[in-house]
Amino acid sequence: MNLLSPPAMVDIVEVAPRDGFQSIRDPLPTAEKIRCIQALIDAGVTRLEIGSFVSPKAIPQMADTGELVAAFADRAAMRFSALVPNLRGAELALDHGVRELVFVVSVSESHNQSNVRRSVDDSLADLARIVSLMQQEGNTYLRLDLGTSFDCPFEGTIDWRQVDSVLAHAMAICDELPMEVALCDTTGRATPYQVAEHFSRLIDHHGRAGVKWAFHGHDTFGMGVTNALFALHHGATAIDTACAGLGGCPFAPGATGNTATEDVLHALDGGKVYTGIDMARLLLAADAIAALPGGQTASHLRQVPRERAA
Amino acid sequence: MNLLSPPAMVDIVEVAPRDGFQSIRDPLPTAEKIRCIQALIDAGVTRLEIGSFVSPKAIPQMADTGELVAAFADRAAMRFSALVPNLRGAELALDHGVRELVFVVSVSESHNQSNVRRSVDDSLADLARIVSLMQQEGNTYLRLDLGTSFDCPFEGTIDWRQVDSVLAHAMAICDELPMEVALCDTTGRATPYQVAEHFSRLIDHHGRAGVKWAFHGHDTFGMGVTNALFALHHGATAIDTACAGLGGCPFAPGATGNTATEDVLHALDGGKVYTGIDMARLLLAADAIAALPGGQTASHLRQVPRERAA
Repeated sequence: MNLLSPPAMVDIVEVAPRDGFQSIRDPLPTAEKIRCIQALIDAGVTRLEIGSFVSPKAIPQMADTGELVAAFADRAAMRFSALVPNLRGAELALDHGVRELVFVVSVSESHNQSNVRRSVDDSLADLARIVSLMQQEGNTYLRLDLGTSFDCPFEGTIDWRQVDSVLAHAMAICDELPMEVALCDTTGRATPYQVAEHFSRLIDHHGRAGVKWAFHGHDTFGMGVTNALFALHHGATAIDTACAGLGGCPFAPGATGNTATEDVLHALDGGKVYTGIDMARLLLAADAIAALPGGQTASHLRQVPRERAA
Repeated sequence: MNLLSPPAMVDIVEVAPRDGFQSIRDPLPTAEKIRCIQALIDAGVTRLEIGSFVSPKAIPQMADTGELVAAFADRAAMRFSALVPNLRGAELALDHGVRELVFVVSVSESHNQSNVRRSVDDSLADLARIVSLMQQEGNTYLRLDLGTSFDCPFEGTIDWRQVDSVLAHAMAICDELPMEVALCDTTGRATPYQVAEHFSRLIDHHGRAGVKWAFHGHDTFGMGVTNALFALHHGATAIDTACAGLGGCPFAPGATGNTATEDVLHALDGGKVYTGIDMARLLLAADAIAALPGGQTASHLRQVPRERAA
């Protein structure tokens, strides 16, 4: 019998401030965001996607990302990252002192067009410019988010070979930059054995020193926690989650969105795996996030009696 | 890299007619139950826990179990089972022609007292009588449900050695009877690595020819699907689930109960693993079950657009 043992440690990347706050129609006051982010830091979160540098017209919810970065500028130990869809976003992020840039490109042409309004080739051309900029700057870290790595809302199931092809181009561009590649289950429709196969094949083809692997999932089909663990058992060392499960699913109203940080923490040997996060304090942050007006949350751990959860 | 491959086949044991219908306060009309069970059979379900032979005063929801068995007496290919908490229940089940008896005993003394109002030793004494009866009858199959195999609402986390001790007594009693042992996560608080450890250790100690292993979980803490897959990768060949996730959680009002059959089916390589069950028809059965008055359901696959689910 081949016993699955818990990993020694896992990087939990908290994405509620980006993926979650973005899902709330009316932009939250910056002070509310700061309060929630502080609660997450108090819980022991060490990696946090704080926002995105995008057009405030397109996504007004993210317009105060620069202010948030400034508000936490003294937290040297924290790893803040920000999503950048293009070169302009990357320049802004670096100007604001962000050292970890999350560049997003979808594997499927149709989703990339819908998400960032250009072709995959155009996105990769911008990635090349961003990588040059980061290499000039030094002391930066690239997170490459590969959207629709398992399923596309327009094209259906994505074969690992399609990811392989886009990733081959991206890895050639990134050269020796220190980076983390996230396979993103944009729709939440990935299944655990698909996750296992994609990580296994793609790390086999593209693994190199200086590259780490992450999984960004959604719980829409109820696979969020399972897929996260299967990713960890096939080479991922980081998992994106949103505290309280904040975030809706754009194509399935009423369906759950992001996988809740507290649920993944519980799965990690009842919270005994080293993540730096304290469950009781995380649940306090989840309470604060769940109380935000207009937010949609989904968390199992918040539903059970508190003394049984922590 | 150690690739987790999907199992070749999995026995899905549908428990909505027992665990689910029992959770609805006002007993359902027998005709409604028959309609739902027929929908499950139409979907390709081959193993089904149809009810229990218990005191109709204690659990009026199960009073018509004999009628249900009679209604489906012509389905020779189906494997129907019925829960029996004691010798009297076993006698009734056999009298009604049920060949698979589900005997339930909890690992924790306090939960066994609360659940079947007697000590673990008294339950095991009754098991010995039931085993004799079944050996006399022949052509019968025992499912041993070990309640609170991971966590107890009164005693907290259960160590695998506690299960080991009760199971050692039970296995000595069962001798060479063909049987299936289910480790039951009564509260839903089991975590995946705990499931891995318990199955691994207990099968190592008690595995023998003629004994299969099953997992009965709940999704209260969001671990239902993950725990099921971890059980399958550590020796379980059968998983108990309830269509539509029917069933509440007695200690956490509003929390989800049983793991939805359709969610586990989706986890099994998007439904490609051989279970005999057709997803589209299963979702029709889930719709019928979700429409029952007074029932509490929780299913991810029912929430997503139907064309994306099947």
